[in-house]
Amino acid sequence: MVAGGGERPWAPAGAAGLAVGATLLCNVASLAYLLRGYVVDGRRRRRQGCAARSGADDGALLADEETEAPDHAVALPPDAVLNLELGDPTMYEAFWREVGDRAATVIRGWQAMSYFSDPDALCWFLEPEFEREVRRLHRVVGNAVVDGYHLVVGTGATQLYQAAMYALSSPARGDKPVPVVSPAPYYSSYPPQTDLQLSGFYRWAGDASTFAGGECIELVCSPNNPDGAVRESVMSSAAGAKPIHDLVYYWPQYTPITGRAAHDIMLFTVSKITGHAGTRLGWALVKDREVAKKMVYFVDRSTIGVSKDSQLRATKILSVVSDAYEAPPAGDGGAAVPRLFDFARRRMEERWRTLRATVAASGAFSLPEEIAGYCDFNKQTVAACPAFAWLRCEKEDVEDCAEFLAGHKIVARGGKQFGGDARCVRINMLDRDQVFDMLVQRLSAIN
Amino acid sequence: MVAGGGERPWAPAGAAGLAVGATLLCNVASLAYLLRGYVVDGRRRRRQGCAARSGADDGALLADEETEAPDHAVALPPDAVLNLELGDPTMYEAFWREVGDRAATVIRGWQAMSYFSDPDALCWFLEPEFEREVRRLHRVVGNAVVDGYHLVVGTGATQLYQAAMYALSSPARGDKPVPVVSPAPYYSSYPPQTDLQLSGFYRWAGDASTFAGGECIELVCSPNNPDGAVRESVMSSAAGAKPIHDLVYYWPQYTPITGRAAHDIMLFTVSKITGHAGTRLGWALVKDREVAKKMVYFVDRSTIGVSKDSQLRATKILSVVSDAYEAPPAGDGGAAVPRLFDFARRRMEERWRTLRATVAASGAFSLPEEIAGYCDFNKQTVAACPAFAWLRCEKEDVEDCAEFLAGHKIVARGGKQFGGDARCVRINMLDRDQVFDMLVQRLSAIN
Repeated sequence: MVAGGGERPWAPAGAAGLAVGATLLCNVASLAYLLRGYVVDGRRRRRQGCAARSGADDGALLADEETEAPDHAVALPPDAVLNLELGDPTMYEAFWREVGDRAATVIRGWQAMSYFSDPDALCWFLEPEFEREVRRLHRVVGNAVVDGYHLVVGTGATQLYQAAMYALSSPARGDKPVPVVSPAPYYSSYPPQTDLQLSGFYRWAGDASTFAGGECIELVCSPNNPDGAVRESVMSSAAGAKPIHDLVYYWPQYTPITGRAAHDIMLFTVSKITGHAGTRLGWALVKDREVAKKMVYFVDRSTIGVSKDSQLRATKILSVVSDAYEAPPAGDGGAAVPRLFDFARRRMEERWRTLRATVAASGAFSLPEEIAGYCDFNKQTVAACPAFAWLRCEKEDVEDCAEFLAGHKIVARGGKQFGGDARCVRINMLDRDQVFDMLVQRLSAIN
Repeated sequence: MVAGGGERPWAPAGAAGLAVGATLLCNVASLAYLLRGYVVDGRRRRRQGCAARSGADDGALLADEETEAPDHAVALPPDAVLNLELGDPTMYEAFWREVGDRAATVIRGWQAMSYFSDPDALCWFLEPEFEREVRRLHRVVGNAVVDGYHLVVGTGATQLYQAAMYALSSPARGDKPVPVVSPAPYYSSYPPQTDLQLSGFYRWAGDASTFAGGECIELVCSPNNPDGAVRESVMSSAAGAKPIHDLVYYWPQYTPITGRAAHDIMLFTVSKITGHAGTRLGWALVKDREVAKKMVYFVDRSTIGVSKDSQLRATKILSVVSDAYEAPPAGDGGAAVPRLFDFARRRMEERWRTLRATVAASGAFSLPEEIAGYCDFNKQTVAACPAFAWLRCEKEDVEDCAEFLAGHKIVARGGKQFGGDARCVRINMLDRDQVFDMLVQRLSAIN
């Protein structure tokens, strides 16, 4: 994500007047003309290609569209502010352009109008084809057990994480909310999301390593956001701790797949698998039927289900991903479909190799040590390639790394927001090539 | 909504184990083979037509699809349970089939992938074309002032109503949550949605007519769900009452449009305008910038924005609606587009005429008196045609109308859930023709 430096300061301004700065609102202020160029360009293309055109000429339309230049042809100005604070996964756009029209979704005016997807299902707003493709993808990748699990769909993993906390803490037991903990550094959005409504059921209680123990909800993010560490639950279930496993990065491009996860509640999101963050679609695999029902109740009450349009689109997207790894159906003489995990792992390995070399050469920074393991999916030993770089500034005169990088027109999220060290920052590794390349140039110039 | 009576009882069973029965979960249990027939049929069609097919042959695909029989060709068994408890607006499917392919939406694999729609906008997850079509539609209909208002998009009006309560009550003032009130009968989902998280900011306080006064949030639903009454705020703003205007039924098919509403916070939803309930898309028109920003913050924190796919689809749907009421562009020689509000008003007037005649003939029931007024949109005096019938059982031996109707295989929501009279029930007037026709047959047989 990129911003010209001239028009607006990099610092969060959008959150003025709010009790807590917004996750993304902050970043709105950090963008300017070049990104606006991207967005306007993309919007124009979308306006031509989708919403304002009749479906009747889609064939011709699709053919026209392919001649347009891809986004990465736009040059970055040398003084652009690089906003790498968020995990916007725009790196994946290049892959989906390569896939082309076979990943397009068509939704007719009269389709998917009802509140219901399957009135008889426990999760009645879950589109059955989407469920089928989710289960198929987990089987293809081998990263989670799906048999015997209930599937609950949500507006991103974000909504499901709240649904899971609700399910584990309601009805209220006594007059104290259940404490919610996670070992630092933890995902910076956990505290404000947990306390958004000052719920009487649950309340953020901070770093798990300083928590006194007893009944609590533990958020286990693995690979961990921000530092990519492989984690297991640290709290005692015997003492009443209930884990929620946030596995949104447990995919082969980011980490070795060392086995099928089989925890009580496991959260996933389309955003971090295929890059479709704007689709706002996540799912939970839930072992216990009553917990799943409470999660469904939460999603019902908070948004009366989940966008059918997003589910239809994700069904198509996930089917394209799985198709590429399964044998083509008999009689299909078409060209091979590009393979998502191969694309993304190649890209991530290149980026991490480049970043590690840059950091090693500069001496001003350090990164967590590289870890590797045998990946059941890739059938070889691979290095972990986290979606974020947890960069530490080693310069003696720098106490706040985010502030320091801002001076070099690099916007990153400071370590304190993760309950950690202000000398660390989290940097998005999933932005477009041009942005990543300029990041590396800037870091290599710091010494 | 229809259910065969054999397999499952009509009574809510899905909510077992939950503190409060779910809005929609209840109804899951009330459905059986015939509706399943509908759904499976619709699903099969969708699978062929959308998710599993490449966009490259959309033209041919669209042509194929048109030959399929519409849903209403499926016969209802005589013992079907009629589930009219919800407001599922499936009546509109017939309209969108008539519109045909010009209402189809195509979304390419690489489109709308970012979290952002417009990074510079106050509501950064709002698609600019969607905003444009929303403002255009309000101008076409004349039901709300849009100039000078901020537009916030949400996952249905449901999410925005919570966002608005959050915006009006945070940061917490003192240690007591702000009371939330509405005059009975009020929308039955207000209490459980308000108290879903036992928020420290706001808390349901019941019927506005028995509220002691002072600082509060007043929910003003007009036309009112369940009884269709035209409402104004009843609490005193001088005493600290802050209204949220829920105007989801303020459209010309339901009520005379008597002027452009210009309240501080006004909520709308695609579901009740075009029937696209599964799209889960609503918007708020908000006068105050700081309130709008807090609402954006709430949607950011609870779901990190709103489905782009839903917004792209709704952009197309709303543009088709407005196009039909505006002059066709020069050189367009195509056939006229069907007009949504004409279709829906015609259908609603027929249904209400039939229902009123049935009730008058039976003597066992009564309905709120018909109201009429001059409609600025239709340019004539029209009767109100509420989306729900608020039916009262006048039989002396009946104290619970919902229970009584259940004995006649009609599932309706009982008046107590609306803070009102158990002799009343709310019946959905927006289901498919066949279901409505059978409802009338059954009611006319009761005496």
